Amino acid sequence: MSTENKNVTIIGAGLVGSLWSLFLAQKGHNVKMFEKRADLRSGRAEAGRSINLALSDRGWKALESVQIDKKVREIALPMKGRMMHDLDGTTTFQPYGMEGQAIWSVSRSQLNIELLNAAEEAGVEMEFEVKCLNVDSESGICSFEDREGKNFDVKSDFAFGTDGAYSAVRNSFYRKDRFNYQQMYLTHGYKELEIPPGDGGSFLIEPEYLHIWPRHEYMLIALPNFDGSFTCTLFFPFEGEPSFESIERTGVRDFFEKYFPDATKLMPDLEEVYNSNPTSSLVTVRCFPWVFDDTVCLLGDAAHAIVPFYGQGMNCGFEDCSILIKHLDESGGDWKKALQDFQLERKRDADAISELALNNFIEMRDKVADPVFLLQKKVEARIQEIYPEKWVPLYSRVTFSHNPYSEALEIGREQQELIDKIMSVRDIENIYQKDDFKDLLKFYLQD
Amino acid sequence: MSTENKNVTIIGAGLVGSLWSLFLAQKGHNVKMFEKRADLRSGRAEAGRSINLALSDRGWKALESVQIDKKVREIALPMKGRMMHDLDGTTTFQPYGMEGQAIWSVSRSQLNIELLNAAEEAGVEMEFEVKCLNVDSESGICSFEDREGKNFDVKSDFAFGTDGAYSAVRNSFYRKDRFNYQQMYLTHGYKELEIPPGDGGSFLIEPEYLHIWPRHEYMLIALPNFDGSFTCTLFFPFEGEPSFESIERTGVRDFFEKYFPDATKLMPDLEEVYNSNPTSSLVTVRCFPWVFDDTVCLLGDAAHAIVPFYGQGMNCGFEDCSILIKHLDESGGDWKKALQDFQLERKRDADAISELALNNFIEMRDKVADPVFLLQKKVEARIQEIYPEKWVPLYSRVTFSHNPYSEALEIGREQQELIDKIMSVRDIENIYQKDDFKDLLKFYLQD
Repeated sequence: MSTENKNVTIIGAGLVGSLWSLFLAQKGHNVKMFEKRADLRSGRAEAGRSINLALSDRGWKALESVQIDKKVREIALPMKGRMMHDLDGTTTFQPYGMEGQAIWSVSRSQLNIELLNAAEEAGVEMEFEVKCLNVDSESGICSFEDREGKNFDVKSDFAFGTDGAYSAVRNSFYRKDRFNYQQMYLTHGYKELEIPPGDGGSFLIEPEYLHIWPRHEYMLIALPNFDGSFTCTLFFPFEGEPSFESIERTGVRDFFEKYFPDATKLMPDLEEVYNSNPTSSLVTVRCFPWVFDDTVCLLGDAAHAIVPFYGQGMNCGFEDCSILIKHLDESGGDWKKALQDFQLERKRDADAISELALNNFIEMRDKVADPVFLLQKKVEARIQEIYPEKWVPLYSRVTFSHNPYSEALEIGREQQELIDKIMSVRDIENIYQKDDFKDLLKFYLQD
Repeated sequence: MSTENKNVTIIGAGLVGSLWSLFLAQKGHNVKMFEKRADLRSGRAEAGRSINLALSDRGWKALESVQIDKKVREIALPMKGRMMHDLDGTTTFQPYGMEGQAIWSVSRSQLNIELLNAAEEAGVEMEFEVKCLNVDSESGICSFEDREGKNFDVKSDFAFGTDGAYSAVRNSFYRKDRFNYQQMYLTHGYKELEIPPGDGGSFLIEPEYLHIWPRHEYMLIALPNFDGSFTCTLFFPFEGEPSFESIERTGVRDFFEKYFPDATKLMPDLEEVYNSNPTSSLVTVRCFPWVFDDTVCLLGDAAHAIVPFYGQGMNCGFEDCSILIKHLDESGGDWKKALQDFQLERKRDADAISELALNNFIEMRDKVADPVFLLQKKVEARIQEIYPEKWVPLYSRVTFSHNPYSEALEIGREQQELIDKIMSVRDIENIYQKDDFKDLLKFYLQD
């Protein structure tokens, strides 16, 4: 390695922070990582914000780079498509990609523990229950408060803010002149619920899918866990009819039995779990710059928190690490250049996935319950079958490729225009399966 | 008055704060106002952010409500239109409205002093050089630090944050769950310069206009002052070619002589003033809610800072006061309802003027130098002449009316579509002055 070893401070030992510490430690840098929460491995840690997450190709690629993918594969469950649940319990399957493609349900805390262990083995020093008070990009000094309330400073060559959507590092810069910043909340919030395992740790609904109960203005989803349980999440308006506010008045179980009857049967402790779990908000954060005085850099949610509807929050944060390490490798030790190149390349992709994630909420809660939309997905799958190289659907490009998100968004828009035209062809519901659909496609794709 | 008297804290004694304190004191409420800066009237005050401002009808209306308009009229200079200066010194006049309509150049500090004096006379208590540390909307306690560094608390029924674009009051709420917030900077900044008075306090360019040197990507403007001087403002990119960064390398006077030759002749101390005045940034702030726990409310720039290109920042803040007092009057003492109604009515109008102000930068620096745009303005003036009731141009609706900004934006868009059609009529440059233009108009306006 041609580059000099640096002293690096990482603030935030969540998924992105611990992965990034591992990347840097493996390159030989001296890394100290600080985390506000208790060590997850101590058993005393508070519950994370969401219990399980969907790992997809961008995330896997970063995990492969630090040779931790095999370990993680052992704690991950593949979900090969969406399983939609109607009001009457009828289910409809929609694959995420082609045969063999899947996204992977993984426990946030288990994944974080694997990353922390690997980082520690690679030489990363860690301190927990330490609160970041301020980061000064001019002096390179990060100020902390330890668990006894004592303040201390750490001076290093570079500092990274990987402390999430409510980043304290970013907060040090938010009043800085010409810092563009936006925090935007949805009128929907979410609450986590549970379908417990059946006898002997069996799954009570099919484990190989992401289950969705789409109800237009709101939805329930469920992801499988290794112990046979499912973590369910209700995405629901805060106010109005119905809403968290209204069903707490009119009865939670009544509401669930009416709108999610098949799921509710599998939730014996519904009210208890409902009342003990918090109702959380959904924020999108956009800001720029991410790099301050060439010494401090935001990564992951601290730079670009997104809503969870594309399953890309963690994957995007992990890809940040892949892309920044690429720039560091290419720069031959010029960190200033690498950090600048990183933020200039990555900002438009973060904005793109932010937009895609917001749009996908509508698709998941509303469109997947619409027969026309499902037909459109089938037509698109047929186009992909005919032109496997040429036609990669938007979802696949985001989830199963490493194309920049901004490119995916752009191509997705062009594809949508074409699909809209093809869907307006008379009798398309029968034509698309026939042989001469190829001729029609040739016309539209100007082959 | 049917309503109970309230104890009210106002944080920020700038233009909007001192006007709002006056409104409330005149209604009999007990008002205490706190300001971070020194008392402007002490003579020790630091320079305000901008030296003069344009008062228009919305501002005047609020000043009339508190019977201070006559005093202010004595310190204000009318500007009846734009005077554009070409590279070769040729000037072109474009009226702002109809005969008799004008916007008024007024000194920020003089206007503020008048408002502070009136507020004090009306019984408002004031403390200066007191920094707001925090506002707690649940307890109603505002925390301050005085000039000796001592902290103290003030408890009141209601608190108003009128402390500007970088509001400390708003800052108390920015990490609150579900608080939507955005700060967005232009890539242009500004610097204030001066054309000094001529002999015996005479004006060296015509005083009755807002002068503009539009140069496409940037511009210089000048507003008259009572002492015969003009305050000039250069709106200019921070980086690139040309920019603040580049001309400091290549020579300020050279640049000015090349691009603003007629103005530069009148600026003997250009370099000195250029070097001593700061280069400031231009921020747009949007947030919601403005009201917290029914006790704390943001007003003016603290709620909705906008860029200065429509001359509406102060006017919009003053109109906030008019509209909030209307809701307080109508609510019969129900402050909770009044504050809610205010923020729900006003948010869309603040968003509208925010957008209009951003758009007007392009108009001022670029379009006013375009003959087609000037012809369009003439055609529009002719339409207004034919249909004075029906056709109020966007600029007039914003500047010389009390229609909600959101309505102005909406109608402005519809009008622009019509104007675009009319401007594409063959030979329009000759037709619009003729009698049969009325028939053409009838067709387009579907009269």
